[in-house]
Amino acid sequence: MKKTEIASEVKIISMILKRLEPMPDMPIPFGDDVSAVDLGNAKLAVLKTDMLVNKTDVPPSMSMWQAARKAVVMNISDLAAKGVKTIALLASLGLPRHLSTSDIIEIGKGLNAGAREYGAYILGGDTNEASDLIISCSAFGIAKKRNLMLRSGAKPGDMVAVTGRFGKTAAGLKILLENIPLHTKLRKKLVDSVLTPEARLNEGLALAKTGAVTSSIDSSDGLAWSLHELSKSSNVGFMIDHLPIAEEIADLSKSHDFDPVELCLYGGEEYELVVTVKPESFEKVAKKVPLIRIGHATTGTSMTLKMNKKRIPIEARGWEHFKTALPKS
Amino acid sequence: MKKTEIASEVKIISMILKRLEPMPDMPIPFGDDVSAVDLGNAKLAVLKTDMLVNKTDVPPSMSMWQAARKAVVMNISDLAAKGVKTIALLASLGLPRHLSTSDIIEIGKGLNAGAREYGAYILGGDTNEASDLIISCSAFGIAKKRNLMLRSGAKPGDMVAVTGRFGKTAAGLKILLENIPLHTKLRKKLVDSVLTPEARLNEGLALAKTGAVTSSIDSSDGLAWSLHELSKSSNVGFMIDHLPIAEEIADLSKSHDFDPVELCLYGGEEYELVVTVKPESFEKVAKKVPLIRIGHATTGTSMTLKMNKKRIPIEARGWEHFKTALPKS
Repeated sequence: MKKTEIASEVKIISMILKRLEPMPDMPIPFGDDVSAVDLGNAKLAVLKTDMLVNKTDVPPSMSMWQAARKAVVMNISDLAAKGVKTIALLASLGLPRHLSTSDIIEIGKGLNAGAREYGAYILGGDTNEASDLIISCSAFGIAKKRNLMLRSGAKPGDMVAVTGRFGKTAAGLKILLENIPLHTKLRKKLVDSVLTPEARLNEGLALAKTGAVTSSIDSSDGLAWSLHELSKSSNVGFMIDHLPIAEEIADLSKSHDFDPVELCLYGGEEYELVVTVKPESFEKVAKKVPLIRIGHATTGTSMTLKMNKKRIPIEARGWEHFKTALPKS
Repeated sequence: MKKTEIASEVKIISMILKRLEPMPDMPIPFGDDVSAVDLGNAKLAVLKTDMLVNKTDVPPSMSMWQAARKAVVMNISDLAAKGVKTIALLASLGLPRHLSTSDIIEIGKGLNAGAREYGAYILGGDTNEASDLIISCSAFGIAKKRNLMLRSGAKPGDMVAVTGRFGKTAAGLKILLENIPLHTKLRKKLVDSVLTPEARLNEGLALAKTGAVTSSIDSSDGLAWSLHELSKSSNVGFMIDHLPIAEEIADLSKSHDFDPVELCLYGGEEYELVVTVKPESFEKVAKKVPLIRIGHATTGTSMTLKMNKKRIPIEARGWEHFKTALPKS
């Protein structure tokens, strides 16, 4: 549901959260990317669950192995964005009847591959019959309280930066869906970014250690949406003066009908980190973790892109879904 | 999937587990009810995930509130069977489009109610669009290593006992599905056991403290299936000489077509605990926690019911599903 009509998802989440009694002294408030339980000794148990649904999260040509791996990686990415290494995951599976033995083996292998790639393990899970393939993973990690990077600490004047360039996955998805012909190498690169996304775990851990990151989120719902989330949680605005458009996309837009600004801002499933950094520490931090500075935080909550001497509002919309719209609520 | 053709689920789980690299020094092996991560200081983080799927887990007349509550309670029950209190849960939701605002509010309230009833909290979750309602909860608790009750410690000669009588939920489900007329009070009691199941948390915690329980499991897949699981993990057999048939079922069988032995052994979703206890400690334990002794563990792995001077094998089958069969694998 996080892909289309994201406002509708926000409404559903808000309706549910209103009915939940918050745990006293909850270490991480509702609405951040992960949840936590205090373990004492300034440590937290960090928990996350994220569900992959075939119908909405698995594009054409994604294999069972890739889908299972992605279901794991999207959870690891959320912990990584908080500066936390995933130690273990559980996988709850909804399996449609038509799956073959080899599909199930591929799912097992994909789950394991996604976890081991980032030093984590699958500890267990649950299997069920379901109409559509569902892989709901939950991730567990342990964090030092003081290292945790939340959505809520950005201050006006902080630098905004990202761990990589944007637009490849949105372009890759467009290529898959519209079957756009392209030379093999570029096609593979863009399509691979959709089929085998990577979590920025090392970057997240290194950023957390600097103590200079004031807020952080992963970009799974797109760059624009991620900025809006940080804005909402931190009560700041953003002036973006440099769009981190992937080179491949800039090139492609010359020959094909690709809008690089659209793909960069309103794509998604990139799993890059979007962070704010204390301005005085930015250079030092950027030496430790390759960061692309894209702008700065401002007072107020407006969200503006400065480009070609124009100022364009950055809209609160995310990853356009490839197949289906959201439930009406 | 845990409801019908349970052997098929076992096959699927085994295919997946074979592809998972086990975490070194995994505190709880694959195949128990919960998983764990070592926290040091003789403590474990205990993790569990269990998915409720509308099509297979939600009988007719179960409300959204009840379904959401059940999705929470079935996770709490698994931790309870290990002697662990659930501290927090996450809920990953797959929501079909046709749900109304009030459905979603009921889901929120049901999740909260299930957790608060057992002193736990819902910390967060994830929402998605799905074809069928899916509520995949994951539970977190902290255990003292030495208190943990696994499936694997039963020894020949141990007493086998349960925390309550069996058959009410299977009868309740039969009543719901076949719309069997019954006087209001009894109908309500049996149907309520299906719609608002209860986890044996206090019993599980008290049993764990005695240090005399050698193995434990909850009976969500039925008494017979639970005994077979303990047998498999502990490498013992069971001689059952007293079937803990619920009084209501015994009465009902006189006037209706209910087979009390079938309902007691091969029902399910009862959430009673099935435990083995050191024989010399049984009396002391049973003073602390009301237990019904049903038999004892034996050498070998045969599973026998002694009833009316006959010896009947207890079959390895569980909860017959009410709507659908398992995927062929």
